[in-house]
Amino acid sequence: MKISGRNKLQGVVKEIIKDTVMAKVILDYKGDEIVAVITADSIDDLGLKVGDEVTALIKSTEVMIIK
Amino acid sequence: MKISGRNKLQGVVKEIIKDTVMAKVILDYKGDEIVAVITADSIDDLGLKVGDEVTALIKSTEVMIIK
Amino acid sequence: MKISGRNKLQGVVKEIIKDTVMAKVILDYKGDEIVAVITADSIDDLGLKVGDEVTALIKSTEVMIIK
Amino acid sequence: MKISGRNKLQGVVKEIIKDTVMAKVILDYKGDEIVAVITADSIDDLGLKVGDEVTALIKSTEVMIIK
Amino acid sequence: MKISGRNKLQGVVKEIIKDTVMAKVILDYKGDEIVAVITADSIDDLGLKVGDEVTALIKSTEVMIIK
Amino acid sequence: MKISGRNKLQGVVKEIIKDTVMAKVILDYKGDEIVAVITADSIDDLGLKVGDEVTALIKSTEVMIIK
Repeated sequence: MKISGRNKLQGVVKEIIKDTVMAKVILDYKGDEIVAVITADSIDDLGLKVGDEVTALIKSTEVMIIK
Repeated sequence: MKISGRNKLQGVVKEIIKDTVMAKVILDYKGDEIVAVITADSIDDLGLKVGDEVTALIKSTEVMIIK
Repeated sequence: MKISGRNKLQGVVKEIIKDTVMAKVILDYKGDEIVAVITADSIDDLGLKVGDEVTALIKSTEVMIIK
Repeated sequence: MKISGRNKLQGVVKEIIKDTVMAKVILDYKGDEIVAVITADSIDDLGLKVGDEVTALIKSTEVMIIK
Repeated sequence: MKISGRNKLQGVVKEIIKDTVMAKVILDYKGDEIVAVITADSIDDLGLKVGDEVTALIKSTEVMIIK
Repeated sequence: MKISGRNKLQGVVKEIIKDTVMAKVILDYKGDEIVAVITADSIDDLGLKVGDEVTALIKSTEVMIIK
């Protein structure tokens, strides 16, 4: 199975904050933090918990460049 | 100056491919690749070139999690 | 493997138009069309061709409602 | 009136969950579920309720392909 | 007809640049520029041309804040 | 410092509504409202408050056109 989304960064879940509709997931990626805001439902669906090894998936059209 | 976008990942420009409207920028980010698709105009506006140290800016609502 | 993105719609590739940086993929999805704009690279990476059974993946934060 | 967004899928509202800022709307589209996360304000502005016939609007740059 | 997307900014088309897959549309919006990148197809579908009065539609989850 | 995101609209913060994970910020831009949904964290990080002069940053691929 392959996904067209070009950016796949593997990290470890450091923190999860769940609200009614949305949830915030903070990953550790080689010392940097990656923050994802996903639905609270998907936390349950993936059985996501602190310490999990996961992949952050980001479509290349969503990435801006700062110089 | 601060930006609300939570993900600011520092990398180095490895490759730029410009088309008429859009351009693809590939960064080296801690050994992984980050691919950004931005307007060709902004390549000129930033004076972006291979070897530049830049920051990839990604809003947390654009990040999915795969487990 | 599970993905947090809530919308996974299965369709069949009807048409692919590749440009230098971006490509357009049109799916038949239950009689409707789904249009995806992805990088031309990912067409090659997935070996995507007309007739392929694929899944359109869409984050729920990207869906608007019209009434 | 026409909208540039290419993906317009007509469904029926099955469920609405409102939080303070955001709300989740689940549509039935020909037996599939489509999930939209929109502002809680827009639920009120559209007078959205279960049973409404609505259209999900998705920009083609937001659609990934899985094969 | 109402759209959940909160930002509807009325402007006038100043410039259109069409490529094979994507097109760039520049609007004059109260003296500022708004740049939209949409599919080349939708330019034809809307019959979009310089001088047209149009509305830029932007989902609130796509807006960052810089301070 | 330059950002590839093409749309930068300067406005004044009129209202902030914070929830656990997300927050809504309403700007006044020359008499129009611009609504941004960002993480509650970034409200604190930017020290954002009513009356602040800020810039709304929007990637051009996120803008649709209605005609």
